[in-house]
Amino acid sequence: MFSERLKRLSPYVPGEQPQDKTYIKLNTNENPYPPSPEIRDLLRDFSIERLRLYPDPQSKVLCQTIAKAHNVDVEQVFVGNGSDEVLSFVFYAFFDSAMGKLLFPEFTYSFYPVYCDYYGIDYKKIQLNDDYSLSTEGFLNETSCGIIFPNPNAPTGILFPIKKIEQLMKKYPKDRVVVIDEAYIDFGGESAIGLISRFKNLLVARTYSKSMSLAGLRLGYAIGDEKLINALVAAKDSFNSYPVDTLTQKIGEVAIKDSAYYEKINGKIIKTREFLTSELKSLGWEVLPSTANFIFMRKKGLPGKEIYLTLKKNGLLVRYFDIDGIKDFVRITIGQQEDVETLLGKIKKLDTG
Amino acid sequence: MFSERLKRLSPYVPGEQPQDKTYIKLNTNENPYPPSPEIRDLLRDFSIERLRLYPDPQSKVLCQTIAKAHNVDVEQVFVGNGSDEVLSFVFYAFFDSAMGKLLFPEFTYSFYPVYCDYYGIDYKKIQLNDDYSLSTEGFLNETSCGIIFPNPNAPTGILFPIKKIEQLMKKYPKDRVVVIDEAYIDFGGESAIGLISRFKNLLVARTYSKSMSLAGLRLGYAIGDEKLINALVAAKDSFNSYPVDTLTQKIGEVAIKDSAYYEKINGKIIKTREFLTSELKSLGWEVLPSTANFIFMRKKGLPGKEIYLTLKKNGLLVRYFDIDGIKDFVRITIGQQEDVETLLGKIKKLDTG
Repeated sequence: MFSERLKRLSPYVPGEQPQDKTYIKLNTNENPYPPSPEIRDLLRDFSIERLRLYPDPQSKVLCQTIAKAHNVDVEQVFVGNGSDEVLSFVFYAFFDSAMGKLLFPEFTYSFYPVYCDYYGIDYKKIQLNDDYSLSTEGFLNETSCGIIFPNPNAPTGILFPIKKIEQLMKKYPKDRVVVIDEAYIDFGGESAIGLISRFKNLLVARTYSKSMSLAGLRLGYAIGDEKLINALVAAKDSFNSYPVDTLTQKIGEVAIKDSAYYEKINGKIIKTREFLTSELKSLGWEVLPSTANFIFMRKKGLPGKEIYLTLKKNGLLVRYFDIDGIKDFVRITIGQQEDVETLLGKIKKLDTG
Repeated sequence: MFSERLKRLSPYVPGEQPQDKTYIKLNTNENPYPPSPEIRDLLRDFSIERLRLYPDPQSKVLCQTIAKAHNVDVEQVFVGNGSDEVLSFVFYAFFDSAMGKLLFPEFTYSFYPVYCDYYGIDYKKIQLNDDYSLSTEGFLNETSCGIIFPNPNAPTGILFPIKKIEQLMKKYPKDRVVVIDEAYIDFGGESAIGLISRFKNLLVARTYSKSMSLAGLRLGYAIGDEKLINALVAAKDSFNSYPVDTLTQKIGEVAIKDSAYYEKINGKIIKTREFLTSELKSLGWEVLPSTANFIFMRKKGLPGKEIYLTLKKNGLLVRYFDIDGIKDFVRITIGQQEDVETLLGKIKKLDTG
C-alpha cells in the first residue's frame, strides 16, 4: 500500500512544542520578544473578504519588499512556507547524487539528512575542526553535487567568516550550488547576500522564525542568482502553487519594513547572550563562541541528557542531542534577561549537585 | 548546476490571479461570498505574541475539530498547507510505479500529472464515457499502483455517485490506495468519508478553498484509516515539520464550526448554479450536469478560446483549457447572483455575434 520512497524516510523530530505554558521555553531558538507591533494593526484592520480569493501565487509584493530590504532584484528572491520548505525545494532542484554526494557539516541542522532521504540524495558529513568550527578543506577534497551549511552553524553557534566563504566560493566548482542557511545571521554575523552577484552558484536561505520573531507564521526565503530562483519556482509550482497564504504575505511585508524594532530586540538578545556566556564561563562552563540566538555549552562530568532532564524538572526546556560527539552539550536559546537569570539560578544548583 | 529531477518538471499553471480588481473573477472556482464572519473577531483579538513561537507541528486541536465535524477519529485526520500540499504527500507516500501505473481520468485536475513528474511516477489517463462521466471499468482493467479522481470531477462538474464508489472499492485491490479529492463535494454531492471505516485503502481529500471560502488561507486535509494518515505524517515530517501556521490553525477551527453560515452561502451558490444552467440551456448551450461550484459548457460553433477572450474583453474572467477533447468548453465559476446575471448579458451578445 506504500511507496518504496516512504520506506526510506526517517522523519525530522522537531524540539518539543508543549501546548501549555508551564515551561520557560529555551529549546527551539524562538525569539523571546514579540514580533513587530505593526502586525497587530494589520490583523485588526484586515478585510477577511480577501481570504475568499487565492493568494498571489508569486507573492510578488512580498518578494519586492524583501528585495528592497536586502538591496537585491526581485528576480533574486524566492519565498516559501518557512525556510524548511524553501530548503526542501533547494534539495530537489540542485542536489543530485549523479553529480556527486552532497556535503554538509558533521554536526549541523538535522533536517539536512532527512531531505536527502526524502529525495534519495547521497550525502557525506564533513568533520568539524577540533574547536567545532567549519573546515573549508573538507568541502574541497571531495567530488560533490553541492554544499549546504548554516551560518552561524547550528547547534554550535559558531560563525564561518565571510572571508572564508569568499575563498570557498572561489575554489569550489562553478557548476555546483553552495547554500548558506542564514537562519541566525542577524545575531551578529555578516550575511553572504553581498556575494551573490559575484557567485552565481551561491544561494542564501533566510527565515522569519528567529530574528523576526515569527516562527508561528511559517515564512522563509532564498536569495540568489535569477537562474537559481527560477529553478526553485519550477519545483514549487510542481508541488504546491500557493504555499504562502495571503495573511502571511501581508505580515511578511509589514515585518521586514520594521527594521528599527527588530534591531532593538535583537540587540537585547545579543547583550543577554554575552551576559549569559560570561556568567557561565565564570562558573566553569565551556561555551562555544556564538553569533546566534543560542549557545552550545558543556561542563566536565555533566552529560547533556542529565542537564536537559534536571532543567526540565525545574521548569526550563532546553535542547539535548543524543548524537555521538556532542552528547555532553546542551543548546540553550537566549531568552529575555529574566529567563536567563532564572536559568543561571538553576544551573548554579545543578553545579553544586 | 541542476538536478535531473528538475529537468523532468512541467509545472502546474494556475488560473490567472490578477492583483487588480477590474475583473469579475469566475475562473478559479473561488467562493463569491466572504468566509465565516467569526474569523473577523478572531483576527481582531489575536495576540500576536503567539506568533513568536512555532505552531503545534501536529495541528492537534485543528485535527480534533475537523474530526468532530466529520464524525471520525482524530487519528484519521491529516492537515496540510492547502489540499495541493496534502495531495503532494499523497503522491509521495502511496503511488509507486513499481506497483503499476497511477490511474486518473483523462480530463481532470491538471496538477495530478505534475505531481507524477515531481516524484517520477508513471500514470495512465482513463477515458471518460461519452457523456464525460467517469468509467469504473477503466480503473479496473489495469494493473495500477492507485487511483485518484476529484468527485465531482473537475473541470466537468459531474458527480460519481457514492454507490459506484462503493462498487469500485469492493472490486479494487485492497493493497492499493484510492484517493477521492472532494474539493467540490459540498455543492450537492455525497461524501465518501462514510466509507473510510469499511475500506482501509480509501482516502478522502478536502480543502478549505471552495465551500469554506478560504482559498487565501491555504488549508486542506485528508481523512482515512490511521495507517494512511501516519504515512502522510511521515512524508510531511520529512519535508516541512510545520506546514500549517498558528493563525491558519485557529482560523481553520473557527471556520469549520460555523457550518450554519456555510450551509447558507453554499445553498445560494447551488441555487445560482441551477438558475444559470437553466438560462444557458434555454439559450441553446450544452451544460454538463454539475454538482460543483462551476459549470462546464459549450455551444456549437464557438471555440472555448473565443468565448474566454470575448468574456475577458468584457470584464469577466473564465477558464478555458487548451487540451484536445475539451477545447470547445469553458469552465465558469458560480458567482453571486448579480455576477451571473452580468455574465448572462454578455453571453447573449456573444451568441448573436
